[in-house]
Amino acid sequence: MFPFVPPVRDLRFVLEELLEHRSLALPGFEEASPDLVEAVLEEAAKLAGEVWAPLNASGDRQGCARRDDGGVTLPEGFIEAYQAYAEGGWNGIGVAEALGGQGLPEVVASSVQEMLHGANMALGLCPMLTAGAIEALAHHGSDEQKAVYLPKLVEGSWTGTMNLTEPQAGSDLSKVRTRAVPEGDHYRLFGQKIFITWGEHDAAENIIHLVLARTPDAPEGNKGISLFLVPKYLVKEPLVNADGSLGERNDVTCASIEHKLGIHGSPTCTLSFGEGEGAIGYLVGEEGRGLNHMFTMMNEARHKVGIQGIGVAERACQHAFGYANDRVQGRSPRSGRSDCLISDHLDVRRMLLSMRGRTDALRALALYCAAELDVARHAADPAERDAAQARVDVLIPVVKAFSTDQAVEIASLGVQVHGGMGFIEETGAAQLLRDARIAPIYEGTNGIQALDLAGRKLQRDGGAALTGLIDEVEATAVALSASAELAPLGESLAAGATDLRAAMAVVLAQGGDPERGPDAVQAYATPFLNLAGHVLCAWQMGRAALAAGAARAAGSEDPFYAAKLASADYALRQWLPVGRAQRAVIEAGMESLAGFDAAAC
Amino acid sequence: MFPFVPPVRDLRFVLEELLEHRSLALPGFEEASPDLVEAVLEEAAKLAGEVWAPLNASGDRQGCARRDDGGVTLPEGFIEAYQAYAEGGWNGIGVAEALGGQGLPEVVASSVQEMLHGANMALGLCPMLTAGAIEALAHHGSDEQKAVYLPKLVEGSWTGTMNLTEPQAGSDLSKVRTRAVPEGDHYRLFGQKIFITWGEHDAAENIIHLVLARTPDAPEGNKGISLFLVPKYLVKEPLVNADGSLGERNDVTCASIEHKLGIHGSPTCTLSFGEGEGAIGYLVGEEGRGLNHMFTMMNEARHKVGIQGIGVAERACQHAFGYANDRVQGRSPRSGRSDCLISDHLDVRRMLLSMRGRTDALRALALYCAAELDVARHAADPAERDAAQARVDVLIPVVKAFSTDQAVEIASLGVQVHGGMGFIEETGAAQLLRDARIAPIYEGTNGIQALDLAGRKLQRDGGAALTGLIDEVEATAVALSASAELAPLGESLAAGATDLRAAMAVVLAQGGDPERGPDAVQAYATPFLNLAGHVLCAWQMGRAALAAGAARAAGSEDPFYAAKLASADYALRQWLPVGRAQRAVIEAGMESLAGFDAAAC
Repeated sequence: MFPFVPPVRDLRFVLEELLEHRSLALPGFEEASPDLVEAVLEEAAKLAGEVWAPLNASGDRQGCARRDDGGVTLPEGFIEAYQAYAEGGWNGIGVAEALGGQGLPEVVASSVQEMLHGANMALGLCPMLTAGAIEALAHHGSDEQKAVYLPKLVEGSWTGTMNLTEPQAGSDLSKVRTRAVPEGDHYRLFGQKIFITWGEHDAAENIIHLVLARTPDAPEGNKGISLFLVPKYLVKEPLVNADGSLGERNDVTCASIEHKLGIHGSPTCTLSFGEGEGAIGYLVGEEGRGLNHMFTMMNEARHKVGIQGIGVAERACQHAFGYANDRVQGRSPRSGRSDCLISDHLDVRRMLLSMRGRTDALRALALYCAAELDVARHAADPAERDAAQARVDVLIPVVKAFSTDQAVEIASLGVQVHGGMGFIEETGAAQLLRDARIAPIYEGTNGIQALDLAGRKLQRDGGAALTGLIDEVEATAVALSASAELAPLGESLAAGATDLRAAMAVVLAQGGDPERGPDAVQAYATPFLNLAGHVLCAWQMGRAALAAGAARAAGSEDPFYAAKLASADYALRQWLPVGRAQRAVIEAGMESLAGFDAAAC
Repeated sequence: MFPFVPPVRDLRFVLEELLEHRSLALPGFEEASPDLVEAVLEEAAKLAGEVWAPLNASGDRQGCARRDDGGVTLPEGFIEAYQAYAEGGWNGIGVAEALGGQGLPEVVASSVQEMLHGANMALGLCPMLTAGAIEALAHHGSDEQKAVYLPKLVEGSWTGTMNLTEPQAGSDLSKVRTRAVPEGDHYRLFGQKIFITWGEHDAAENIIHLVLARTPDAPEGNKGISLFLVPKYLVKEPLVNADGSLGERNDVTCASIEHKLGIHGSPTCTLSFGEGEGAIGYLVGEEGRGLNHMFTMMNEARHKVGIQGIGVAERACQHAFGYANDRVQGRSPRSGRSDCLISDHLDVRRMLLSMRGRTDALRALALYCAAELDVARHAADPAERDAAQARVDVLIPVVKAFSTDQAVEIASLGVQVHGGMGFIEETGAAQLLRDARIAPIYEGTNGIQALDLAGRKLQRDGGAALTGLIDEVEATAVALSASAELAPLGESLAAGATDLRAAMAVVLAQGGDPERGPDAVQAYATPFLNLAGHVLCAWQMGRAALAAGAARAAGSEDPFYAAKLASADYALRQWLPVGRAQRAVIEAGMESLAGFDAAAC
C-alpha cells in the first residue's frame, strides 16, 4: 500500500500553465489571488492525504452496516474525517458568498474535489450529494427554505441526498410512483426510493432529502413529478426565522443498505417514506417541474462524477508507479541487470505511461470545462457567458462519460502492473477498480451521456459549439506543427480534428430526419462520444506539450516538464490513433443494430 | 440472476461448421464420431448447467476458509460438484487412452472446459491444475511415477497443483529459493510457495504438488532449478506396484489463504514445505531441467486460461441479454412504446452485440487453435504436425492474452448493461468481472504473452508461421468479397491483414538487432498482440459469416444464422477497425518509452 500524495503540482500545472488562471480575472473573484489558490490546494492536500486517504482501505474492508435501530454505522474514522472536512470550511469553497460559501472558482473547487475523491471516493460522495442539494435549493427553493436549510448545508453540519430512483424508475424517471399528498403548508410522502447515496448515517446532525414524487391527480409522465424537501429531523416550527434547531424524527427510514462491488464506505440505502403517517415534505419550486429542477443541478453533478473518476485514476497511477518502482523482478536487456525494477521493463513502462498520460489528459479537459463553467457564470459579457455555457453543455457529457470509462481502464491497468499482487485485496489496487466501476453507471449512465451529447447537445445547435472547439483543436495543432520537436504531435492532432469533424457530420445527418433521427443517432452516440473524448483530451495534451516545451525552452530542467512531454507524446501518438478508429466505425454505419434481434442470441 | 445455459449450439457451430470436425479425421480418433461428440457436449452441458453453475454465486459469497487444523473449507456443495465431475469421467476426456483417459480431441476437451468455466470458474480451476500435473508427469515422469500417480490423477480422485511462485520469484522463476536436499531415493524440500491454486482442500483423497526447487550446489538461475513431486499424503511404500493406498501426511502445510478480488471459491494457498523434517519429494525428469519441464505443459495451460476467459465472457453475455430482454425502461423511438425492453434501445443493443460478437470470435479462434493442437499431436505426416505446431506456438499467446483481456472488457460491459443493478453484488454481473480479472494475470501475465509472441515466436522463424496464417486470412477476405452481401466484410478483413503484415515487418525489423532487439521488441509487443488478436478473431468471424451465409442460401431460416451474421458484421466492421489502429501506434514508434523516466512521475 502506497501513501496517496495529492497531485498539487499537476493541478497547479493545469490551473497556472494551461488555463493561466483565467477564472481569477472574472468579476467576483477579485479576492482569489494565485497565492490564495495555491494555499487552498496545499491545505486541501493535507486533509486529503493525511486524514481521508488513510481511511480508504479500512473503509472498504469494514463497509457500512444497518443497525437494528434503523441507523447506519459508517466505517471507523469516517465521522471524524467528514467533520474535519466540514469544520475546515471545505464544504463551501465553491458555493457563492451570498449563500454563505467562499465563492472560489469552479476550477479550484474541482481541483479540491479531485484530491478528496482520490483520497477516499466513498467518503467524497457525501459532500458531493450535499452540493447537489445546495444547488437545487439555491436555484429553486423559496426564500424561507433557503434561509432555513442552506446555511447548515453549506457549512456541512447537515448533508443532502438525491432521491430519484425507484425499482421501476431508473434511467426513466417519468415512472416515479412515490406519492406526495398535500396537507396544509406541507405534503405527506409515501413510497420507496432505492440507491440513495449516503441516505442514512450519523456523520451530520440532519439529512435533507430531496425527493421526486407525484402529487395526487398529477398527469402521467414527466409533468406529474414534483420535487420535495424531506428532512430526516424536522426543523422546529415556525420555519420562518428558525434557528435550525431540530424537532421530531420524520417518517423516513432506512429499510436496507446495498452490498456493492465497490465504494463500500458509502452507504447506499433503500429509503421508505411514510411507513406511518407519511413523511412531511415541502415542495421545492413549482409543482410538476420536479424533473426540470433536478436537471438544473445534474449537469454539474455529472462534471463532479467525471472529476471523481480522475481522482481514482490518479490514485491508481500512484499505486502502480509506486509498485513498479519498488518491485524487483527479471532482467533488463537494456541495463543488463539481472535484478531490475519492473518499471525498467518497457512493457510495464508502456502501461505506466498509458495510465499517467491518460490521467493527465482527463484532468486537463475536466478543468478546462470547469474554467468554462466559471466564465459561463461570471463573465461580464452575456455573449461570452452564453458561448461558454454552450461549450460546457457539450463538454460535460464528455467529461462524465469519457473520464469514468477511462478511469475503469486505468484502474484495471493498475491491477495488471501489480501482477499477482494486484488480485490480492490487501494490495489496494483492486479496490480502486471496484470503486471506479460505479462512475460510468450513476448520475446518468455513460450511454445516456452519449445520447445527451450526440442527440440533444449536438442536434440543437447543429454542432456549432463543438465546431468552435474543433477550431481551437486545429489552432493547437498548427502551433505544435510550428515546433520542430512537437510537429509529429501536431500532425496527429490535426488528423484527429479532421476525424471528429467528419464523424460529427455523419451524426448530424443521422439526426436530421425528424422521424428516424432520435433512434438513428442513438446507435452512433457512444462511438461518437469516445472519438470526441480522445480528440479533446489530446488537444489539452497538445497544449500541455506547448507549455512544457516553453518551460524547457526557457531553461527549466525540472523533470516534471519532461514527464508532461512524455504524457503528451503518449496521448497524441499512441492513444489518439485508437480513438480515431471510431470514425471508421461511425462511417461503416450502425444500421445493422436496428435489425439485430437481441432476443435471438 | 439468470440460469447459465451452456452454449452447446455455439460450440457445435464452430466444431461442425467452421472446423468441419477435422480433428475426428486424424489417426487415433477413429472412435470419436460426430454423434459421440454431440452426446459428450450435451452431457457436459448438464453437469455444467445443473450441477456447477448453481454454485457459482454461493461459492463467491461463501469463499474458502483455512481451518485451525490447517485444512481448507470449500464453499458448500463444491466437494460434491467436484466429485460428480470426477465420477462422471470428465477429468480424463482429453487425456490419451494410454494414460487411462478417453483420448478425445482437444477441440472437444476445450469445448467441455469452456462450459465448465462458464458455469463456475473457481471450481474449474481445480481440474485445470490437475491437467497440468498430468501433462508434466506424462512427459517427464519416470515409469514408476506414471504408474503410481497418473491413474488417480486422471480419474480425478487425486488433484494436482503447480508450485512455482515465491515472493521474490514471480514472472522471473530463476529466483526460486525453495531447497531440495537429496536423501536416498527422494529429496527433502524446504521453502514457501505462494499463490498456489487449490493448494489445500478436502475434495480429493490426495493432492499431488509439483514443485520447483533448487538442489544443493545447483548453479544460480534457471539451470539450478528442478521439478519435484510432493504428495500431500505419501503413497505407501514400495512405490513400485503401489496400489495408491495412502501413508503418512507429508510435511507440507497450508499457512494461509488469500483474500482475493474474485474466484473466491478457489482456495489460493501459501504452502510451507518442511516446517519439520522436510517435505518428501521425488525428482521429476532431470535435475536442473525443472523450468523446461514446467514449460512443456505451460503452453497448453495458457490455452486453457484463454478458454476460461471465453467461458466467463459467455456467461456475462447470457446475464446481459437476460437482463436486457427482461428489464422494462424508457421509450423506444422506433416502436413508439413508452415501456420498452432496454434491449430495444440501440445503445444497449450495441453493447449486447459487442459482447456477443466478441465472445463468438474469441471462441472460434480458441477452438481453431485447439484443432491445430490436435493436428500437431496426431497427424500422420510429420511435416503436417510441425506446421500445425508452428501455428499453435503463434496462436497460444494470442488466445491466452487476447481472450482474457477481452473477457474483462466483456464482463465490464455486462455490468454496464445492468445499470445500477450491475453494481449490486446479488445481481451476479459484478462477480463475473471480478472473476475474469485474474485471467490476464496468471499463467504468465498478458505482457509476457505478448513478449512470447513478438519476441520468441515471431523472431525465431522470421514470422513464417504468422505469415502463413495471414495468407489464410486473405483467402477468407477474397471469399467474402465474392459475395455481394458479405463484400464489405471482406474489404475490412483484407485491410486488417495488410495492417498485420505491415506491423509484423516493423516488429521483425526491431527484433533484428541482436543488441537492442529484445528490448526494442518489448515496447511493441502488446500493441502487436492486440492487432494480431483482432485480425485473427475477425478472420474466424469472416469464416463464420461464410458458413452462416451458406446455411441461409441453402434455405435455413434458423435465427441462429442471422445472429452469427450480426456477430460477424460487428466483428469485422465495428471491432476490427479499433484493433487496426494499433498499426498506427506501432508505426508511430515506441522509442519514447526507453527515455520515459518512470521514477519522475
